[in-house]
Formats: sequence, structure tokens, C-alpha cells
Amino acid sequence: MDFNAEFKRYYDIAQDIVEQYKLSGDTEYKKLMDAVNYSYGANGKRIRPVMLLAACEMAGGNIKDAMPFAAAIEMIHASSLIFDDLPAMDNDDLRRGVPTNHKVFGEATAILAGCVLMVRPFEIMSKAAKNQNQIDAISIMAEASGVHGMMGGQQIDLSYEGKKASKEVISELNRLKTGALFKASVVCGAVIAGADKKQLEAVSEYGDYLGLAFQLIDDLMDNNPDIDTGKTKGSDIENEKSTYLSIYGSEKCKELASEYTQKAVDALEIFGEKSEFLKQLVKSLESRIR
Amino acid sequence: MDFNAEFKRYYDIAQDIVEQYKLSGDTEYKKLMDAVNYSYGANGKRIRPVMLLAACEMAGGNIKDAMPFAAAIEMIHASSLIFDDLPAMDNDDLRRGVPTNHKVFGEATAILAGCVLMVRPFEIMSKAAKNQNQIDAISIMAEASGVHGMMGGQQIDLSYEGKKASKEVISELNRLKTGALFKASVVCGAVIAGADKKQLEAVSEYGDYLGLAFQLIDDLMDNNPDIDTGKTKGSDIENEKSTYLSIYGSEKCKELASEYTQKAVDALEIFGEKSEFLKQLVKSLESRIR
Repeated sequence: MDFNAEFKRYYDIAQDIVEQYKLSGDTEYKKLMDAVNYSYGANGKRIRPVMLLAACEMAGGNIKDAMPFAAAIEMIHASSLIFDDLPAMDNDDLRRGVPTNHKVFGEATAILAGCVLMVRPFEIMSKAAKNQNQIDAISIMAEASGVHGMMGGQQIDLSYEGKKASKEVISELNRLKTGALFKASVVCGAVIAGADKKQLEAVSEYGDYLGLAFQLIDDLMDNNPDIDTGKTKGSDIENEKSTYLSIYGSEKCKELASEYTQKAVDALEIFGEKSEFLKQLVKSLESRIR
Repeated sequence: MDFNAEFKRYYDIAQDIVEQYKLSGDTEYKKLMDAVNYSYGANGKRIRPVMLLAACEMAGGNIKDAMPFAAAIEMIHASSLIFDDLPAMDNDDLRRGVPTNHKVFGEATAILAGCVLMVRPFEIMSKAAKNQNQIDAISIMAEASGVHGMMGGQQIDLSYEGKKASKEVISELNRLKTGALFKASVVCGAVIAGADKKQLEAVSEYGDYLGLAFQLIDDLMDNNPDIDTGKTKGSDIENEKSTYLSIYGSEKCKELASEYTQKAVDALEIFGEKSEFLKQLVKSLESRIR
């Protein structure tokens, strides 16, 4: 398997889907539509939709069935970034190298755009749902985004600003704030494909470890002045946030990232050759901190 | 039919449902759960869930099937109030006579609570969905809340702050910001009951006119110092918002409210006696400005 070619194939599909689900038309609330398209259409890495599509194919599903769900997960992710950047949250001015949503459209419209990108996924998914697996995928997506997932994680992040968090709390924070949506992407893909219980456990484990590795990698990159992440540098330190990095230091974090990457790879063994792409994907993320 | 007894029956069911779907448990994000329960559990009028349950029974459905959807619509409504009150939006300190969510929990947690109350409905509904009608009800709910519904309406509201809006714009604003969710409540109830096309057109028309009447009544009450609405008085005037009231004056608004109320009543004719409760409901709203 040529990883780069395969990544490009999934990425191009994800880009097409993003384009397809942009908002258009002349309305009295065009400013809101522009704000939604600004963040949703932004030049993202599309990792979550790529993972969802790949997991669907790995589990023997038809990629077409997964497309509305891929659009949905990218919207939920885009929404979380808008809220994350708000003055009341991280108060960031830059995201992916361009001004954040509220800097361009104002705080009120940015908040509404975040809301739209949180609800529209459920319209798209429910309109596409034709069987119980697809209904289940909607529940999984809602649960991963909600209070016992991403939003709960964001609250932990807020509650510990300026306070020292224990390893256990940081682990819970990462599992929810970042991990839950990564895990949902592969689990949804596999569910749509009709994966059995054992297969779902395997992708679930993969998603967990990939999420943990991703957060470590993100923290390492966010605090490395030599790497251009397109975000305001060191805002975690500025906001006095506890991260694994502040507890373990960068060497130990790199070690942990490698360990989790390997565990993610191992989790997919039962899929044999078909898992090669998702294995390479987590390795390629980890290679960014080498 | 004894309207008050019937209202109490639906209201009590709605209250039970609200209680049932409150968040509980000991987590690191308990503050967020408290903020969610604060607004969701607040002493609301429960008009939307009551309407949803009543529309389901009017169309011959089983009220049990409608319950998760009644919980969902009340959450979406509660969410919209949290966002409405934010400093970046209407900047209100009081709601239903008590401090607004952001006044109690801070802006960041209030925003997250609004997000939770926007996503959790879709988890609850998708977990309950067992047939195509129920999946359709999820789409209807998402569409009514989203960019071409409530959120688009909120954007129009923002865009015209301090500017004079035409009658057409105010009508579009009311149709989306307030009307869409009222309409969704009766349409969802009827869809869950398996209503046919003609019945759905009838409830849809009822919902439209009730929404229009409601907004007029709300504007009239919001600006009448003799009526205790539990909200900050005259905040529309303070925020220089155009309303029907500012264009037509209160007498003409009362006339219009009566006209729309009658049209809502007429729309339900095809349901015969079974429509008595929903007819009385819109009349009872209108009686508040007499």
C-alpha cells in the first residue's frame, strides 16, 4: 500500500464532501452562513473524516454510506474549534494561520456558527440514515460530542485553568476533549460497515490510543517554537493549563506517544492487511515529533 | 374537555420527562452538568413539549413514543435561552425571575451548557428511534433548530440590532427565531403518530400561526410594565430591536395576534374534536394580552 496515495484518495473524498455540504443561497442570515463556511471550509487536515471513511472500508463497508457521517464529524470538529477559540475560552486570535471565527465575524455570530455546526450534522445524518447501523452511528456521534465526551472534556480544561491537575485528571481531560471524537470517527465508520462486536472493540481501542497519542503530539508541537502549527504559540502555557508536557517533560512525552502509537497499531491486527492504512496513519502522526 | 385539567396532564408528563433526563453522577465536569440542569430544569412553561405530546395524541399516536422527543425539544429551547442571554447576544441578567446561566456559572460554562443542550437531544432521539417516522422527526427537529430555522432567526435579530427592519424582515425573523421550533413541536408529534400528508399540512399551518401569535404576545408582554414576565423589562427597546410592536403599535399588534390565533384554530378543523386542546392552547396564550 502506498500510504501517501491512499491518504490523498481519502483526503480528496473528504474535501469533496466538505464542499458539497457548504451552505449557499441568498438569505437574511448570510453572515451566519459565511461564518459557518469560513470555519468548516477552512484548510483543515480532515483527519477525522479520513479516519471514518478508512474505518468503513477496513470493515468491509461501502464508502458512499459513510460520506454524510464524514461530513458530520468534520462539522462537529470545526464547531469545537470555534468555541475553543472564543474570548470566554482560550481567547485565540489565530487558527490554522488565519484569524479565528470571532475575530472575523464577531463573537455573537461565531457562537451561532458553532451552534449551526453542532446541529447540522444531525440533520445530515438523520436524513441519510436508512438502517439501524446508521441510527446507531448518530447516537455514537452525539455521545462523543456531548457532556460525557468532548464537551465534558472542555469543561475539565476550563475548571483546571491556572490550577495544577493530576495525571488522572489530565488523562480524563485528553480522553474526553480530544479522544472521544477520534474514537467516534473510527467506531462510526466500522458501525456503518456492519462490523461485529470484536471488530468494534478493536477499532474502539485503536481510537482510544490514537487520541492519547494525538494529544501528546499536539502538546509537543504547540510548545515547540521551531514548528509552525498555524496557531498562537504557547497559549497553553499562557493560560496556565496543565498538560502531560508540564508534568512529564518532552522526552517522556515522546516515549509515551510512541508507546500509544504502537498500541493503536496492535489493536488493528484482526483486520489483517486491510488495516494497513489506519496503522500507517497513526505512525505518520507520531513521525511529526521525531 | 376541561382545558386546565388537560393542560395539567400534559404539563405533568413534561415535568416528569424533564426530571428523567436531568444529568446526574459524580464527574470532573460536574459544574457543566449543574449548569445544564440549571437551565433545563428551570421552572419553564413547557409549552413546546406539551404541544408535541398533544399533537401526537391528536393524530392518534401513543404518547410514550413522543416522550423522548418532548424532552429533546425542551432541551433545544433551553439551549437557545442560554445563548440568547449571553453578554455577546442580549446580555440579560434575569430569566424567568432568576439569574441567567452565565451569571451563575460564568460565560464559558454557560456556552458549553448551551452546546450540551443542543447535542444531547440528538443522542436521546437517536437512541429512541425505532422506525422511519421517528428518524424523520429527528431531521425535522434538526432543521428547525439550525441555520435555516432558529439559528438563522437569531442571526437576523443580531444583524438588525440598532437598525430599522422592514415588516418583511421582522416577519422572517419571527418565523425562524420563534416560529420554527413551535412548528417543529406539533409537526414532530404528528409525524411520530404516523400522520398523513394532509394532517401534517394542517399541524404545520397551526404551528406557523401559533408561532406568529406567540411572538406578538411576547413582545407585547415584554414591553408592558404591568405584567411580570420574570425577564429584564424592555431589553428589546434597550437593544434597539425592531419588532412588530415598534412598527404597528400595541393596538394593531393585539388585532394581529387575534387574527393569527383564529387562523391557528381553523387549521386544525380536520382533526375534529380531538383538536380541542391545541385550539384552546393557542387561545389561552392570546388571552394573556386581553
